[in-house]
Amino acid sequence: MQSIVVLGSTGSIGVNTLKIAKKFGIKVEGIVANSNTTLLNQQIEKFQPKYVAIANEKKKDAVKFDSLFVGSGGIIELLHHCQSPLVVNAMVGYSGVMPSIECLKLGKRLALANKESLVVAGKFLDCTQIHPIDSEHFGLWYLMGEKKFSKLYITASGGALRDWDVAKMKDARVEDVLRHPNWSMGQKITVDSATMVNKLFEVLEAKWLFNTDKIDALIEEKSIIHALIEFEDGSTTAHIADVDMKLPIAYALNQKIEGQILKPIDLLKVGSLKFKSIEEQKYPLWKMKDYLLQNPDMGLVLNAANDMMVEKFLNKEVSFEAIYKNIDKAIEKFDGFILNSLSDIELCNSAVRNFLLT
Amino acid sequence: MQSIVVLGSTGSIGVNTLKIAKKFGIKVEGIVANSNTTLLNQQIEKFQPKYVAIANEKKKDAVKFDSLFVGSGGIIELLHHCQSPLVVNAMVGYSGVMPSIECLKLGKRLALANKESLVVAGKFLDCTQIHPIDSEHFGLWYLMGEKKFSKLYITASGGALRDWDVAKMKDARVEDVLRHPNWSMGQKITVDSATMVNKLFEVLEAKWLFNTDKIDALIEEKSIIHALIEFEDGSTTAHIADVDMKLPIAYALNQKIEGQILKPIDLLKVGSLKFKSIEEQKYPLWKMKDYLLQNPDMGLVLNAANDMMVEKFLNKEVSFEAIYKNIDKAIEKFDGFILNSLSDIELCNSAVRNFLLT
Repeated sequence: MQSIVVLGSTGSIGVNTLKIAKKFGIKVEGIVANSNTTLLNQQIEKFQPKYVAIANEKKKDAVKFDSLFVGSGGIIELLHHCQSPLVVNAMVGYSGVMPSIECLKLGKRLALANKESLVVAGKFLDCTQIHPIDSEHFGLWYLMGEKKFSKLYITASGGALRDWDVAKMKDARVEDVLRHPNWSMGQKITVDSATMVNKLFEVLEAKWLFNTDKIDALIEEKSIIHALIEFEDGSTTAHIADVDMKLPIAYALNQKIEGQILKPIDLLKVGSLKFKSIEEQKYPLWKMKDYLLQNPDMGLVLNAANDMMVEKFLNKEVSFEAIYKNIDKAIEKFDGFILNSLSDIELCNSAVRNFLLT
Repeated sequence: MQSIVVLGSTGSIGVNTLKIAKKFGIKVEGIVANSNTTLLNQQIEKFQPKYVAIANEKKKDAVKFDSLFVGSGGIIELLHHCQSPLVVNAMVGYSGVMPSIECLKLGKRLALANKESLVVAGKFLDCTQIHPIDSEHFGLWYLMGEKKFSKLYITASGGALRDWDVAKMKDARVEDVLRHPNWSMGQKITVDSATMVNKLFEVLEAKWLFNTDKIDALIEEKSIIHALIEFEDGSTTAHIADVDMKLPIAYALNQKIEGQILKPIDLLKVGSLKFKSIEEQKYPLWKMKDYLLQNPDMGLVLNAANDMMVEKFLNKEVSFEAIYKNIDKAIEKFDGFILNSLSDIELCNSAVRNFLLT
């Protein structure tokens, strides 16, 4: 790898990607940030990219760079200028979808941390050109090998409310839901972790990446086992590692890794592990797992409804329960929806949001 | 694979090997048993082997087979007659060593369940021609792949006394030691499990099979994780399966397996797993693990001393503590011993036994 482009360079995955690129001596040809101009300016100085874009137009004047690309159109333009064969897409949310599609259209490989790309538009992406950047799918990739598998498992932490009484969960406050037991992440994904929507997304991602419907998830509260594969012969293998995106990033940038990226897990210190099922009583949205696998286009509906309801929940406009009640409503309304073309994506996304506004 | 030879055909691994051979349509060219003539006669009738040997000369008249080979020399003769490219050695104990050496000399591949072959004579065996038949080494083989590893782990059940007070262990009775918590095996290996000698053997086997000294073991009491590999990058992978030798046997007979051999483990039923270190206070022989890795020829001394002391313990001639006290004595006496040639094996084996008789 000679050079890369990093979309979402100021987020935690973006920052780690730049670190790993430096470690491997890979040049950074282009960087894109959303709004953190302070860090973006530091990155421009340090990595001297040829191309820079800022997604949030209001912030453009704060970026110290000539011929800056601006807005979502600017990101696409930047991609067209870049020669790098690999793009790391670590943008947050729905806005990361179109850049993913564009990268693959341009014949570039895609190191993908943006979940929505596969959840919303999986059927339009050539997954053979995608390197997953997250613990679960990286774990599956690591374990895959040549043997035939019978089932893929990804693990869930269970989210902030995992030890709560089911009866109390519907009224959980924003502060409660954002108290993730294992790590600190963005607010949106922390809520998605408590509702299990994040795991539904990851099930859909696994479907596209590994071309199978035989996917399930279970709760492993310490989050040191990220993925398991059941092979046809009766063997199960597990991928165990610290939750640190440097490992999947390193493999996305450089398919052959020499030397240590993370310290190995000390199982004697870990001491014990528990496996629990994802109970539908506690995580009512989990019941749609198989439905989504059978109707993956509904990922778009789930994502649009969830985006909107989580936003409202974080703004304290609706209860925690309202998130899954409204997702259910949207799924019921749009049941049977088929994504025929790329242009359907934006149409359907708006339709779902409008439906939930009424 | 057209045909195989099975040494130790009437033991549990031998019986399972014949089952798997039948399932795969592999002919059984030769079988060797120790003394269970009833089962051997049934096997002769069912599998119609071309060559048969009985190790225990006293039993020869009970075997219904013309031109039977007899005794340890007869086993070697049988091997010379057989054309099969693969021999499964599931003989018990030290008597399995010479047949292993002979198989490899004859250019045959060796599916090896006889631990002593590697423990006693590892340096004389071409391990590239060996397929391990046991859960731990099979698990390591299954996980190995192309990436560089930094450490291999095998697991131990902890044996029958794992929950005992250390102070009481030295006087454990035969009945106590034979009460293995997870499964029923032969008496000798059940004692070796309680003393951790079995795991020392397996560490030595792993050393020869995988050509490394970076080997450790830990206790996982449910015995569903058999092996783990720590890779240089910081990933750890684990092999999880039922304890059922059909899986390693199947892969030893047929490198490409299609379809199910075992039912996969249901981790939700397993519920939880614990990892514990092997404490030297409880398993005093474990302290010699690194010494053995550095001085693998001492495996012969360990095996000879252990063979003799376990025999005495099972005959209620000595205490449980006497097993490890006398092993320590023998190791101290023979420290620095180097195995120069095959003929040293029998000489040293006798020397250790004679030393402990005095």
